[in-house]
Amino acid sequence: MRQITFEIEAECPVTRARAGILHTPHGDIETPVFMPVGTQATVKGLSQRDLAEEIDTRILLCNTYHLYLRPGHELIRQLGGLHRFMSWPRAILTDSGGFQVFSLSGIRKITEEGVVFHSHLNGDAHKFTPESTVDVQLAFGSDILMALDECPEYPVSHEYARQAMQRTVRWAHTAYQHYRRQITAMPTKHALFPIVQGSMFPDLRRECCAELTDLDADGYAIGGLSVGEPRPLSLQMVEVSEPLLPRDRPRYAMGVGMPDELGQYVARGIDMMDCVLPSRNARNGYLFTSQGRVIIKHTRYKDDAGPLDPNCPCYTCRTYSRAYLRHLYQAGEILFASLATRHNLQRYLDIMRRMRQAILLGQFPEFLASADAPPAQMV
Amino acid sequence: MRQITFEIEAECPVTRARAGILHTPHGDIETPVFMPVGTQATVKGLSQRDLAEEIDTRILLCNTYHLYLRPGHELIRQLGGLHRFMSWPRAILTDSGGFQVFSLSGIRKITEEGVVFHSHLNGDAHKFTPESTVDVQLAFGSDILMALDECPEYPVSHEYARQAMQRTVRWAHTAYQHYRRQITAMPTKHALFPIVQGSMFPDLRRECCAELTDLDADGYAIGGLSVGEPRPLSLQMVEVSEPLLPRDRPRYAMGVGMPDELGQYVARGIDMMDCVLPSRNARNGYLFTSQGRVIIKHTRYKDDAGPLDPNCPCYTCRTYSRAYLRHLYQAGEILFASLATRHNLQRYLDIMRRMRQAILLGQFPEFLASADAPPAQMV
Repeated sequence: MRQITFEIEAECPVTRARAGILHTPHGDIETPVFMPVGTQATVKGLSQRDLAEEIDTRILLCNTYHLYLRPGHELIRQLGGLHRFMSWPRAILTDSGGFQVFSLSGIRKITEEGVVFHSHLNGDAHKFTPESTVDVQLAFGSDILMALDECPEYPVSHEYARQAMQRTVRWAHTAYQHYRRQITAMPTKHALFPIVQGSMFPDLRRECCAELTDLDADGYAIGGLSVGEPRPLSLQMVEVSEPLLPRDRPRYAMGVGMPDELGQYVARGIDMMDCVLPSRNARNGYLFTSQGRVIIKHTRYKDDAGPLDPNCPCYTCRTYSRAYLRHLYQAGEILFASLATRHNLQRYLDIMRRMRQAILLGQFPEFLASADAPPAQMV
Repeated sequence: MRQITFEIEAECPVTRARAGILHTPHGDIETPVFMPVGTQATVKGLSQRDLAEEIDTRILLCNTYHLYLRPGHELIRQLGGLHRFMSWPRAILTDSGGFQVFSLSGIRKITEEGVVFHSHLNGDAHKFTPESTVDVQLAFGSDILMALDECPEYPVSHEYARQAMQRTVRWAHTAYQHYRRQITAMPTKHALFPIVQGSMFPDLRRECCAELTDLDADGYAIGGLSVGEPRPLSLQMVEVSEPLLPRDRPRYAMGVGMPDELGQYVARGIDMMDCVLPSRNARNGYLFTSQGRVIIKHTRYKDDAGPLDPNCPCYTCRTYSRAYLRHLYQAGEILFASLATRHNLQRYLDIMRRMRQAILLGQFPEFLASADAPPAQMV
């Protein structure tokens, strides 16, 4: 009996795209969905009210690695879980911590049992195991948990990628066994997604999918993307994996992508995505608009009285001029981060909503081909 | 014919406190009023909607020095003035730039004509004169302008203080002559306040007041406070000045104060105040509550599930726990600055509103004496 269910509402007759609803204890999530990243239990620059009421964010991603280190999962459990801790009544997905362990932390040692790493905050040694990261995420009360994986750098040898993928599969089985035991006694409802790895090797990706489907998991993530590889390779890895994953489960492409790539992933059967790009680029003055990218520091915006994006309904675009936004950016003002993030996330979520609508109306191929849409190869 | 009028609604029979309304082209302002500081055309961490709709800020202070240097008054004029530039439909007071010239900028030379200073941004030389700072503020379209003053450090000799005060008086007369010529041809409505100086010398303060009342100005500011002097001296300077200023004009004590001092200034006949303390302290984790100061980084708040201030109606206190706020502060998150500033400003504006209510009800002495009120000496 699944605790979090996925319902497919429509499938595109031409591409692999589908529209669905993920039913969670913290609300229904219409897919395809983009999840804003709230690394440390906050999306940098926005309040929870901004996220819910303005942008209508239905699900946030928070980082297990960061929250485990600070303020700690036991404190969060004691304070009623992550939803209550951060006053976010809607759904939360937490990653496994694996990606951050491999990208942020100091000297680490991988064994069959798990990974030992050093905190980027103070150098303290910690260990993540498939079981412990499930426990941490259950302490958070996350709606969707991710199984610990090993995410190798790019490029990596076929042999190393094979070993890492097989370890990821074994860890996923260990995590699932532990998870199923743990949730039996819990009144709350959750889902656990294993992660497909295999670097940029189609054979390894296929092997990984085959092994993971044995788990009959609640959903499947495709990881190891956006680690420095050329974009066509990322898309190819999704293409070779997706047909091997159960059609009735949600698929989540981790860490992607640029606005013009969102449609390409959806066209390849992806239901969920997350990326720091809209929020991080916002803080750096890179704004995504319906008319292309705006680099707000450019002198051309100095006396530009128009809105950032005349086609955008967000508070930033309804209220402020490009000239004012440029001034805030140049002056290093906090309000810039807030207004820019609000806009970029609105842009991402609007693209997702328009794609969903197009799928429901049977017009997704036309949407992909339209000038307004992110350009995408048809699969 | 005054363009911005002040109406006194009630006077405290015991102290010098009064309640009034300042009628501006950008709305009525109930006094006594505290003006949040929006140095660079933004209150750090808050949106204009937060300021208007949540905290009900009626008037903001912006800094002439900062906005003159960046983005420049000509650009702001070209974009329709400061109200339109920053999308703030309510009232704006701008200072003269004098205080920042004397506290922030590099090598400066004071002459009878004005002051030459070097930008803290890039070292460029600039000159402020009594006429030019009026022109800059009219380019902003400020509702209330301040006349250029010389604000000496503390302590300073009686002789230097006398020279600086007399120069401030001459500059105020020059500024007023220029201002009255300029506004004749303008369709917009403004007010110009001269600034009482005289360091901590009662005789100089009295002399300055006498000289400035000749101007029949729209309102009077008391400057040169909060420059490092002991608090009793600041209050004494207000006490000796206020009876010499026209009773029917608004009086503005510049750069004050702590929450427990607000009542002391109001009790001495002050109608308007501004200070960076609520916003700057907020960003540094110093929070003002009805139960005293909260230094949020303290370990005692680590697992404190209660609101920052159970008696505060602000979004921060309605929504988040002290534990979450502490986490955001420790993690260096932008949201902390935003939530903390929102609360501190709400606290200041609530104190002002409660004082106003007490004056209107003839209960200001009781308010001052109450445990809930800022402690104050009666004058």
